[in-house]
Amino acid sequence: MSKIYSKIAIIGIGLIGASIALAARRAGLVDHIIGCDADPAVGVEADELGLIDEFTTDAVAAVADADLVIMAVPVGALGPLAEQIIPAMKQGAVLTDTGSTKRSVIRDVSPHVSPDIHWLPSHPLAGTEHSGPAAGKVDLFDGRYWIVLPLDAPEEVVVTFEAFVTGLGATKERMDPDYHDKVLALTSHLPHLIAYTIVSTATDLESQLKNDVIRFSASGFRDFTRIAASDPVMWRDVFINNDEAVLEMLQRFSEDLSYLQRAIRWGEKDKLEELFHRTREIRRSIIDAGQS
Amino acid sequence: MSKIYSKIAIIGIGLIGASIALAARRAGLVDHIIGCDADPAVGVEADELGLIDEFTTDAVAAVADADLVIMAVPVGALGPLAEQIIPAMKQGAVLTDTGSTKRSVIRDVSPHVSPDIHWLPSHPLAGTEHSGPAAGKVDLFDGRYWIVLPLDAPEEVVVTFEAFVTGLGATKERMDPDYHDKVLALTSHLPHLIAYTIVSTATDLESQLKNDVIRFSASGFRDFTRIAASDPVMWRDVFINNDEAVLEMLQRFSEDLSYLQRAIRWGEKDKLEELFHRTREIRRSIIDAGQS
Repeated sequence: MSKIYSKIAIIGIGLIGASIALAARRAGLVDHIIGCDADPAVGVEADELGLIDEFTTDAVAAVADADLVIMAVPVGALGPLAEQIIPAMKQGAVLTDTGSTKRSVIRDVSPHVSPDIHWLPSHPLAGTEHSGPAAGKVDLFDGRYWIVLPLDAPEEVVVTFEAFVTGLGATKERMDPDYHDKVLALTSHLPHLIAYTIVSTATDLESQLKNDVIRFSASGFRDFTRIAASDPVMWRDVFINNDEAVLEMLQRFSEDLSYLQRAIRWGEKDKLEELFHRTREIRRSIIDAGQS
Repeated sequence: MSKIYSKIAIIGIGLIGASIALAARRAGLVDHIIGCDADPAVGVEADELGLIDEFTTDAVAAVADADLVIMAVPVGALGPLAEQIIPAMKQGAVLTDTGSTKRSVIRDVSPHVSPDIHWLPSHPLAGTEHSGPAAGKVDLFDGRYWIVLPLDAPEEVVVTFEAFVTGLGATKERMDPDYHDKVLALTSHLPHLIAYTIVSTATDLESQLKNDVIRFSASGFRDFTRIAASDPVMWRDVFINNDEAVLEMLQRFSEDLSYLQRAIRWGEKDKLEELFHRTREIRRSIIDAGQS
């Protein structure tokens, strides 16, 4: 893999930012990585982990010479950040983000974009329940999709950025914002919301039962607690910023849950079994699609 | 590990039955294993896998000489099975099951129990989304809880059986039926119900969106599809037979989900973030409890 950008700036050195740094290094995609985080302690940690070449808490200084600026912060923070850094970016540089909602990000960032730079929102479909610089994994993006939303960027700018994400190990895919938010509402946002809910239900049980729920957490609940351990601020922002699509999918989910609830209450065995057979098929499709 | 029972009969050679056979062999807990399944093809498969010493489709013949009879079939099938085999069991033999609901199992099996045998319901908290004899894993029970419900069995009978499950790799734990069903409703049954529901919601989307949901299934949804691929008949029976506790937990879950839904609709960031912090704590408790 050869060099794609000379200098990149990563704003926000959490799970995603740190993983980008590690994977870019692994593939030799860049000469120089500037890391930026509002928290100076993150700089110390990033330094100890050897993630970046240079650290600053000043986002404006971080972007000055960068060919690519990656905003890897919670989606709720993107608007003010973009407003602050765009005027400091160099002519022809590329600005992207890694947020899980795209309509809101475009709504918040686009008003601040100047004709001097290229704004190219994106979203890597990868993550774990861990957060912070130490959560970074060099192989986080390997074989995972990285959604790119070209908007008005010139084709050669998009192609170069796609080469970069491919170099990080990801599979590139273009999508429009509405469709992205709908797909993610069901594949990612709603599952997280439900995991948060069921774990919250457990926290409200009387203490003996709650302790035993924790102690005897069989596979189902344990998987949910893992999902529900994800970064609280990031996810708060996701739900607030993809509210329309999440609420629509939640409505469908609630209807389907009521259908099952009624089938259990009335002992309708055939309905349950038939539905459970259908869901098994979906799992097979995912395995066939190589995403399991 | 030394021998605990001379001869055991396993009725139902699926994921659990096959794993018991493998783990009992590994630890030298028994001299002889008779496997029984209504489906003759299962016998052929079990034979090829070298799971058991002897196979029959006749449950009555299977139990005749066994010191321990393990019914590893869906909970809905336990009543008729018990009625059929108990009169054929030898004096002083132990009868157990591995069902995920315990009140219904006791309700269905106890009327058929004779004073000549010891009835000792149990439930290993272990499983995968796979089913059938080939799904058996020698280490399935390692470090997992195996709940034992002593009922009226003499203490020495219970202690011997507990030595057997410990020998299989499990950690023994006694519980009463009501409490078992309540704990499992939240840790296992409700998570499975919800996973089935969300995957079902996906199956009803228009086909392009559905295909992309499958294609781009990020970590959340993918985890759910794994859970929702579990054995349809087994789970149908679980929900029908633990309906009371499942419906109670489902009611609590629905209330909590409505709370979150409302917080999203009204953009109440603080409520969301506060709740997501709390759920993260539960995950930490589970990791501390060594069940992650």
